[in-house]
Amino acid sequence: MGHHDQATETKGTSRIEAFSDGVFAIAITLLVLDLIQMLHALPAQGGLEGLFHHWQPYFAFTVGFVTILVCWINHHVALEYMEKVDTGFLWVNGTLLFLVTITPFTTAILAEYLGEEPRAAMAIYAINYVLISISADAICSYAYARHLVREGSRDFYRHYKKIYRYAIFYNLLALLCCSFSILIPQVMFAVLFLVFSSPKSVARWIQHRSKTGRRMK
Amino acid sequence: MGHHDQATETKGTSRIEAFSDGVFAIAITLLVLDLIQMLHALPAQGGLEGLFHHWQPYFAFTVGFVTILVCWINHHVALEYMEKVDTGFLWVNGTLLFLVTITPFTTAILAEYLGEEPRAAMAIYAINYVLISISADAICSYAYARHLVREGSRDFYRHYKKIYRYAIFYNLLALLCCSFSILIPQVMFAVLFLVFSSPKSVARWIQHRSKTGRRMK
Amino acid sequence: MGHHDQATETKGTSRIEAFSDGVFAIAITLLVLDLIQMLHALPAQGGLEGLFHHWQPYFAFTVGFVTILVCWINHHVALEYMEKVDTGFLWVNGTLLFLVTITPFTTAILAEYLGEEPRAAMAIYAINYVLISISADAICSYAYARHLVREGSRDFYRHYKKIYRYAIFYNLLALLCCSFSILIPQVMFAVLFLVFSSPKSVARWIQHRSKTGRRMK
Amino acid sequence: MGHHDQATETKGTSRIEAFSDGVFAIAITLLVLDLIQMLHALPAQGGLEGLFHHWQPYFAFTVGFVTILVCWINHHVALEYMEKVDTGFLWVNGTLLFLVTITPFTTAILAEYLGEEPRAAMAIYAINYVLISISADAICSYAYARHLVREGSRDFYRHYKKIYRYAIFYNLLALLCCSFSILIPQVMFAVLFLVFSSPKSVARWIQHRSKTGRRMK
Repeated sequence: MGHHDQATETKGTSRIEAFSDGVFAIAITLLVLDLIQMLHALPAQGGLEGLFHHWQPYFAFTVGFVTILVCWINHHVALEYMEKVDTGFLWVNGTLLFLVTITPFTTAILAEYLGEEPRAAMAIYAINYVLISISADAICSYAYARHLVREGSRDFYRHYKKIYRYAIFYNLLALLCCSFSILIPQVMFAVLFLVFSSPKSVARWIQHRSKTGRRMK
Repeated sequence: MGHHDQATETKGTSRIEAFSDGVFAIAITLLVLDLIQMLHALPAQGGLEGLFHHWQPYFAFTVGFVTILVCWINHHVALEYMEKVDTGFLWVNGTLLFLVTITPFTTAILAEYLGEEPRAAMAIYAINYVLISISADAICSYAYARHLVREGSRDFYRHYKKIYRYAIFYNLLALLCCSFSILIPQVMFAVLFLVFSSPKSVARWIQHRSKTGRRMK
Repeated sequence: MGHHDQATETKGTSRIEAFSDGVFAIAITLLVLDLIQMLHALPAQGGLEGLFHHWQPYFAFTVGFVTILVCWINHHVALEYMEKVDTGFLWVNGTLLFLVTITPFTTAILAEYLGEEPRAAMAIYAINYVLISISADAICSYAYARHLVREGSRDFYRHYKKIYRYAIFYNLLALLCCSFSILIPQVMFAVLFLVFSSPKSVARWIQHRSKTGRRMK
Repeated sequence: MGHHDQATETKGTSRIEAFSDGVFAIAITLLVLDLIQMLHALPAQGGLEGLFHHWQPYFAFTVGFVTILVCWINHHVALEYMEKVDTGFLWVNGTLLFLVTITPFTTAILAEYLGEEPRAAMAIYAINYVLISISADAICSYAYARHLVREGSRDFYRHYKKIYRYAIFYNLLALLCCSFSILIPQVMFAVLFLVFSSPKSVARWIQHRSKTGRRMK
């Protein structure tokens, strides 16, 4: 009786954080392997200056690092307000980790093809980021809907999770722009990283505006 | 006197969890190296579309990721009910980690040979999975027999550990099917992942059925 | 009201330590991949002695290992006195991790070019280390200025953070020396590692000297 | 006054455990990259059976895995009785991690040269293991001498640390045997792993024998 409803019994967030931290830390560190690979692929007699003939690998390394760091910071904040996880959450979280794990691959594509096929390379990166924002939205919505968030933080979390919903549409727009430009999506992603570098401030600003708005009516 | 019986004195589960989480996290993230390797192996003038001539690497990446994630989730649940570990358990657990560490290799075999020798590649993957289920069964049986499980959870754990016993035979069957088909074992593993995506629900269902059955008699 | 001032609300240091530990641990372990790569690049018939024709890879491996270990030990000490982090600190810390992640690359450059272009290879390593010391200084100054340090340790921390300020100028000097020598910067870095192998002792010596100095006046 | 004596002020063991666990976990998982590399080096038309022409890579993988797992288990036990660490211990521990990090390299040498130059390949592995046992002895002796071990466990630890002293001489003997045989050192290492698979039992047996001995006199 009722045994199925309890199937999602909860546990603390510490071990899922440890596993996720491991995946984030490895994905972010693996990026350097592409630079090392470039080093070994240099012609033997070329000399050290051959390292600086192409700027794309360094650009891609930096983009990949910032991308994963922003994801980690937002993951950090999203789980900070949660007090427990259920088995379903392990899967929603696993989907995000899947996309984070793929990021070194889309970054390597950027490094290799930004010179020759910039729009296509940018679009692949953008698709990855659209999926990441969908899965970030799923994490927050799931945690909110299943009451995994601490009671005292529910009101804030309701506003907080909105920013990931907005991000989906923003990233879809950036993806569309890849069809005619590579500068516009780059600027858009730079702005996005700036906004999501401090997700709490943004969420507080939304919360504040919504209260002020209600008070005004 | 009696010093040998105490040789298996116990310690908390936190450090074995941290080490295991590290191994799981690295094994799951290393999978992407195969995609990156495929990227670098592309002919220079081929262009970005060469990335999509073969679907096997992506299929193998996804299979490998889900395989290791399912293992991690079940490892998570199996250790959740334990309050201590002994030295013997470190070795039983080490055997599972050995097989998890091999998984990126069997997955790379899938990616490389699924096109040309699908049944053999599938069989190698299946052998790995049979061994994983044997070692998952060993973990639970060992923890139960050595009273490493919390007293209050022993009754549930007795039912819980059954699912890994069943899984051995199920996976052996899937392995046999590799001799004449590759579709059947794929469907069987998909069903398996679905069932073990939420091992607690299944264990509760077994526990419930066994109680109902006894009551009926 | 005042919601923006609180935008940097604080959290404990455990998760940022776990993530940073992961990055340090992976960066330090990835160094071995360069030795393994050298092994596979040996001509098949050359035999095992071919492994010892070049000492540079082993030198670079050791330098890279000690570099990252010294960084980790200092990171460990710097965070030991902190009781909380804010979002800004995640970014200052992220900058250090970025540079730590690059270290296996600058180390690989050392291994490859120390024979042919020693000064340039050494200079690249030195630039990396100047940036690391700037970012270590930033971590300590930020933590001190934003009151993330435990109240009881503030006095000690004020002296402690000085050593990273000094290190910037010391490393800049070492970088300059790369233009005419490779021995001098090597000796300078060896001395630096010795000093920063036990940052607390140095900080205590500075604290002691400053107190004695004041008393004397 | 006395500020220098306190220079080795202590901290808990949790963060050094996390960092060490990371290094162990990564070193043990990197071993699989050698198997994957072998897979990619196979001739394209050779087929899957080419994977089984050589047994050395699998042997080396297993040896490397067991080696690092035994190190981790003994590290686990050695730190279990410690309540604090000082800065010097971070360096003694760092030396062990250095040798653990090298293990995938000596293992790769085994895989590559066990067929052609078995004694030399075995000797390199044995040198690595001699150094590991010296550094394990250093860890225990340092922890005991600097009173980092919990008071209640000091008596047991005094016996416990002896086993790593014995291991140094045992491994030196195994190294010498590499000059005329490869079977003898293999058997010796197998026995060693068996003994150190449960270091507490062995330490208890030594403690028991020493007490019985004293009583008899």
